Amino acid sequence: MAEFSIISRYFQSLTPQNINVGIGDDCAIITPPAQMQLVSCVDTLIAGRHFPLNTPPHAIGWKSVAVNLSDLAAMGATPHSILLALSLPDIDEAWLAEFSRGIADCCQKYGVQLIGGDTTQSPTLSISITALGWIKPDQAILRSGAQVGDIIVVSGKIGSAAYALRHPHSPLQHTLDYPEPQVALGQALLGYASAMLDISDGLAQDLGHILDDSAVGALLNLEQIPVADELAQLDLNTRMQLVLAGGDDYHLCFTISPDNLKKFKQQHAFELYSIGTIQQQQTCLYQYQQQVFHPQILGYQHFAKASD
Amino acid sequence: MAEFSIISRYFQSLTPQNINVGIGDDCAIITPPAQMQLVSCVDTLIAGRHFPLNTPPHAIGWKSVAVNLSDLAAMGATPHSILLALSLPDIDEAWLAEFSRGIADCCQKYGVQLIGGDTTQSPTLSISITALGWIKPDQAILRSGAQVGDIIVVSGKIGSAAYALRHPHSPLQHTLDYPEPQVALGQALLGYASAMLDISDGLAQDLGHILDDSAVGALLNLEQIPVADELAQLDLNTRMQLVLAGGDDYHLCFTISPDNLKKFKQQHAFELYSIGTIQQQQTCLYQYQQQVFHPQILGYQHFAKASD
Repeated sequence: MAEFSIISRYFQSLTPQNINVGIGDDCAIITPPAQMQLVSCVDTLIAGRHFPLNTPPHAIGWKSVAVNLSDLAAMGATPHSILLALSLPDIDEAWLAEFSRGIADCCQKYGVQLIGGDTTQSPTLSISITALGWIKPDQAILRSGAQVGDIIVVSGKIGSAAYALRHPHSPLQHTLDYPEPQVALGQALLGYASAMLDISDGLAQDLGHILDDSAVGALLNLEQIPVADELAQLDLNTRMQLVLAGGDDYHLCFTISPDNLKKFKQQHAFELYSIGTIQQQQTCLYQYQQQVFHPQILGYQHFAKASD
Repeated sequence: MAEFSIISRYFQSLTPQNINVGIGDDCAIITPPAQMQLVSCVDTLIAGRHFPLNTPPHAIGWKSVAVNLSDLAAMGATPHSILLALSLPDIDEAWLAEFSRGIADCCQKYGVQLIGGDTTQSPTLSISITALGWIKPDQAILRSGAQVGDIIVVSGKIGSAAYALRHPHSPLQHTLDYPEPQVALGQALLGYASAMLDISDGLAQDLGHILDDSAVGALLNLEQIPVADELAQLDLNTRMQLVLAGGDDYHLCFTISPDNLKKFKQQHAFELYSIGTIQQQQTCLYQYQQQVFHPQILGYQHFAKASD
């Protein structure tokens, strides 16, 4: 089957009419809304590395879209469309049908449209998705805006996906297979949060990006980080390894002034957990029940055998 | 080395100041020019499939950008920026330095900016690039506009890259390693050409897309298709296999009315070759020196062992 057969059979129906040119020409064409900036990102999922080899294809499709929408959410952007670069070892029509259904389900839930793609043969199953979205000029919530005295907030329980990866068929499996990008929360935080990102590589490493880019430090109260019941039963070190370095959470982590947090909570009902504060001294200190805690952790490294 | 180290060390310098947010945050942000449509595409290059394993990394970088700019050129769009999804078996700093230099050189030649990326580890070297560009509303040259009586034109010698693939170290090697996307020609043809695409999978298969999408046929005069001296010396069938089914040409193939072609040539000095005409009957007929020719060809198939 040629590339264009795959794309037209499995994916063309995802292109709706309000796209100027969708799948089937050299490029897609869309009309930007007036006075909006274009927000774009790309994320790749490699079989056996970003998801277990036995992950159901519907979940692979869902997750491939979700992790990119999570990046858009982390800016406060409104998602619009995706382009799909799919590399497959061979053509398995049942697999493709399920995979494309997973793509479509996530796109539909978040009002996103597939506008273009490229399919090719490769020894390694790999899905690279580019997500496009819109935001009002100079509204995006960057990593660099955290201020001393801001509160550090996360949008949900942390470490669940990492637990599921290590405990197959646990009740937390769905958090690994079907992450829910916090798109509505990201947009609601425009004008409130001072810095934001999504937690994909582990809370410690990702929060570190905010601290580095904002030239500040943090004090984290580990007992305030929300966890699922399965994690609460683990010993402290094992739990903190999953919470701080597990990755694949796709919750938002943001900083916000105490005043703004109070106002935001009065107007919005999102699940939010305050886990620490931004400090002047440029290190990240961990406390557990008022005691200093020294976790032995490393965030997710994209190259496992890294030399530095 | 973590992902963000690779991106910041090798690629951050490619992000210039006129991007609102470039490499280093969750997403990139750019401001669309007023009254322009966004043109986007994605193409993946897999090592050993889209380029020989011994291809110099500088050429891999160049070609990864060029094939995507060629898709933008095929719409008549003005390229603006790219996002890079790079999957690597391991970190080879010399390789990365050369690869990123190839990316930068192609970007610089065509005025394009790298605004985002994702680097991850994979058993297979794979480069997936998303290209973004702009075009005035309803100006794009689609595949579907060919009219009966139009002339079929190509922008340069065809089959050279396919020859080079089969004859390593030939004088045509640079056409395989360093394709030149026809960006200026694509833009100049706005308002003149009726249908257009770039020849990536072989002239016969790619022209077939124009014919299918426009519901027309063609008569091709094979002796009018320009070839390099190396191909002119081959027997007719071997030559036509390379010309019609070789792929990797990255020249433009377009249709244009005789009147428009005359006007265009009066105003522009681009290298152009008329190779046939659009016919009403929906087949593609090949002639060689006024004789009907039946080539045994197939365009590049993205899945080699396809079942249909």
